[in-house]
Amino acid sequence: MNILEIIEKKRDKKELTKEEIEYFIEGYTSDKIADYQASALIMAIYLNGMTKQETTNLTIAMANSGEKLDLSTLNEIIVDKHSTGGVGDKVSLILLPLVASLGIPVAKMSGRGLGFTGGTVDKLESIPGYITSIDIHNFIKNVEKIGISMISQTLNLAPADKKIYSLRDSISCVESIPLIASSIMSKKIASGAQKIVLDVTCGAGAFMNSQDRAEELAREMIEIGKLANKETVCVLTNMDEPLGYAIGNSLEVIEAIQFLNGNMPEDLKEVVLELGAYMIKLADKGENIEENKSKMLKNIENGKGFEKFLQLVENQSGDISYIKDTNQFPKAKYIEKVYSHISGYIKSMDAKEIGKIVCDLGAGRIKKEDDIDDSVGVILNKKVSDKVENNEELVTIYANSQEKLNEAKAKIQEVIKIQKEKVSKPKMILEVID
Amino acid sequence: MNILEIIEKKRDKKELTKEEIEYFIEGYTSDKIADYQASALIMAIYLNGMTKQETTNLTIAMANSGEKLDLSTLNEIIVDKHSTGGVGDKVSLILLPLVASLGIPVAKMSGRGLGFTGGTVDKLESIPGYITSIDIHNFIKNVEKIGISMISQTLNLAPADKKIYSLRDSISCVESIPLIASSIMSKKIASGAQKIVLDVTCGAGAFMNSQDRAEELAREMIEIGKLANKETVCVLTNMDEPLGYAIGNSLEVIEAIQFLNGNMPEDLKEVVLELGAYMIKLADKGENIEENKSKMLKNIENGKGFEKFLQLVENQSGDISYIKDTNQFPKAKYIEKVYSHISGYIKSMDAKEIGKIVCDLGAGRIKKEDDIDDSVGVILNKKVSDKVENNEELVTIYANSQEKLNEAKAKIQEVIKIQKEKVSKPKMILEVID
Repeated sequence: MNILEIIEKKRDKKELTKEEIEYFIEGYTSDKIADYQASALIMAIYLNGMTKQETTNLTIAMANSGEKLDLSTLNEIIVDKHSTGGVGDKVSLILLPLVASLGIPVAKMSGRGLGFTGGTVDKLESIPGYITSIDIHNFIKNVEKIGISMISQTLNLAPADKKIYSLRDSISCVESIPLIASSIMSKKIASGAQKIVLDVTCGAGAFMNSQDRAEELAREMIEIGKLANKETVCVLTNMDEPLGYAIGNSLEVIEAIQFLNGNMPEDLKEVVLELGAYMIKLADKGENIEENKSKMLKNIENGKGFEKFLQLVENQSGDISYIKDTNQFPKAKYIEKVYSHISGYIKSMDAKEIGKIVCDLGAGRIKKEDDIDDSVGVILNKKVSDKVENNEELVTIYANSQEKLNEAKAKIQEVIKIQKEKVSKPKMILEVID
Repeated sequence: MNILEIIEKKRDKKELTKEEIEYFIEGYTSDKIADYQASALIMAIYLNGMTKQETTNLTIAMANSGEKLDLSTLNEIIVDKHSTGGVGDKVSLILLPLVASLGIPVAKMSGRGLGFTGGTVDKLESIPGYITSIDIHNFIKNVEKIGISMISQTLNLAPADKKIYSLRDSISCVESIPLIASSIMSKKIASGAQKIVLDVTCGAGAFMNSQDRAEELAREMIEIGKLANKETVCVLTNMDEPLGYAIGNSLEVIEAIQFLNGNMPEDLKEVVLELGAYMIKLADKGENIEENKSKMLKNIENGKGFEKFLQLVENQSGDISYIKDTNQFPKAKYIEKVYSHISGYIKSMDAKEIGKIVCDLGAGRIKKEDDIDDSVGVILNKKVSDKVENNEELVTIYANSQEKLNEAKAKIQEVIKIQKEKVSKPKMILEVID
């Protein structure tokens, strides 16, 4: 077996064997296969595709390329939740404590943000004191103790995926269904999940712009889940406009806290309840989706969800006085409202463009090493289909420099499209595939 | 413009502009574009193809990537001749002096052999004293003085092509029509030819195994020639069995000398005359192909072709006593005949396999740095369709070690296929495309 033959096979649209895929992943992870050879193979995969079996073998080979988390000592079904990425996506911050408050253990490793999408770890770290870098022993002890822990990736999970992802990024090979599916699933498998609920975002602010492509990705991941013996459910959600009203690290934490206290933006509520209902189902704690949603709503009303969030933050050394009084979060230096120049209905607010504006304000990273600014961001005052009057407030911008504030103001006016005709409310849950 | 956008365009099967192709070639030649990015683009080109205009722009960009030979001072039409490679191919050694003997100037830079195909420069260097490494000033002076010079590539011609070729070789992207066509034509254009006659070999011992593919390559190169204003004619020739009887460096030189003295193997004669007739035509020295062939045959008969070869060798410091008496060429230590075990007709003698046997005897290089052995090789006693008796001589092997001799003997028996039924004589000139 050699890499030339493997490239040749994929170039000629033939199916690679498990052994060939393992040979490539092992060789590339250990630098025995050169970047330029991996690059040719990746482009051939991009253009010629992979069968379900190949994609699964690639996923498992990547999952096996580094450390793996073993959650079997918890003696319970661990259901992981993952989103393919979006803007204003604070779902994990709300959903995971809520599910944990129903007695379902949550052991969650999250990533940081890169580019226009935020990361759960960055958001958690905007809570003063909160420690995300916890070793595995204590991570598991946390879950045993309070039923939940949310940390950053402290293990070297799926290093082959990391290497391939960064290569794909530098050779225009990101948007490939088998490569995206195997990248996501390899990390989930390496992080010890037995079952997986995936939020497959779809629209302007998502990897997948069309519902067709999102469905294709979902089916691919479900198939991998099946072949890898990790039951997977995909919820396709709308990501045309940002989720909820807040975009920016501490602004989103505050919105999550308000949500857990009963102040639930409609779109965010739909997504949280749908994903949560399937997590509960996969954990064997409730067959009926609507009943599961009611259980979650009950734990919002009775405060148990918020209580669990407080417990989580406290247990990971976060200062809960901020959670109890969100006014304590440091405020941006410049807080300015942007007003509408016309009256009408909000037609669209491109999530990606708003994500970029917030990233440019300092909330996100362009490069991995970049520092981020927790207090900056945008709070929307309207959502798509809302009526807006002339001179009515559209958004509030939180900035730490006058220059960036001005840039953001100019750009956001362009991004928010208003029309005279009524606009129908967007559907949030597009489809559930299992 | 950036390389990511260029890769993306070709990935999505869009046509690259002249500027984008130049950006890639300049960036890659100067190491500003990484191997792994070039590699992804090359695979995308391999799989998605290129338009004629793209291939021409690639060719010209590669031709412009290094030094270029200017032959305009010669004030005559310089017609270059090139073969896409074969086994036993000593055509240039015969054809070029013959054409020069008709008053058509020949300024030829040739390559060395790599793998199973030999190179004209290696063959010339098997003549004691013959110098192939001559600077351009003296190269042109030689042509002015005696009408012919044959040297090695002393200029840094088309370095982009060199870099891309070696990359293609390590990512299984060799067999691509636009990439092969642009590689060949870029070197021809850089080496100053105004018009080009291409011997596009086709069959077991050629890059192109099928006539369809060879035709496709020919049409691509003719199109490039048109768009680049270098009139090009392609002669598709059969390369299923080796050309002529001799394979090996000095063995082929001896066969070339014998040819110029009137001892012309039929297949070799057909190829030499066809290619030569088109060279004469392109040089505006004779419209009629059959008449051109007669002129060449006349210069064989009257000894002018051989005379020109002697002059060429003498002018480049070669020892002409070897040319006058070929018995002087150093002989291999072991010379052994291989006999047929059955009677019948020669069905096939795979040129590539015989090329590999001769290469293994020491006549060729596996790596560029390898030394080669001039005296080893194989002389066929039969050609495809010839009748052979039981115990009749099939080939003579020239080796310099007992071990290699034995290996070659065993292998050659397997390569020569004999059948009871008659076999028709293979057609040598498959097609002429202009």
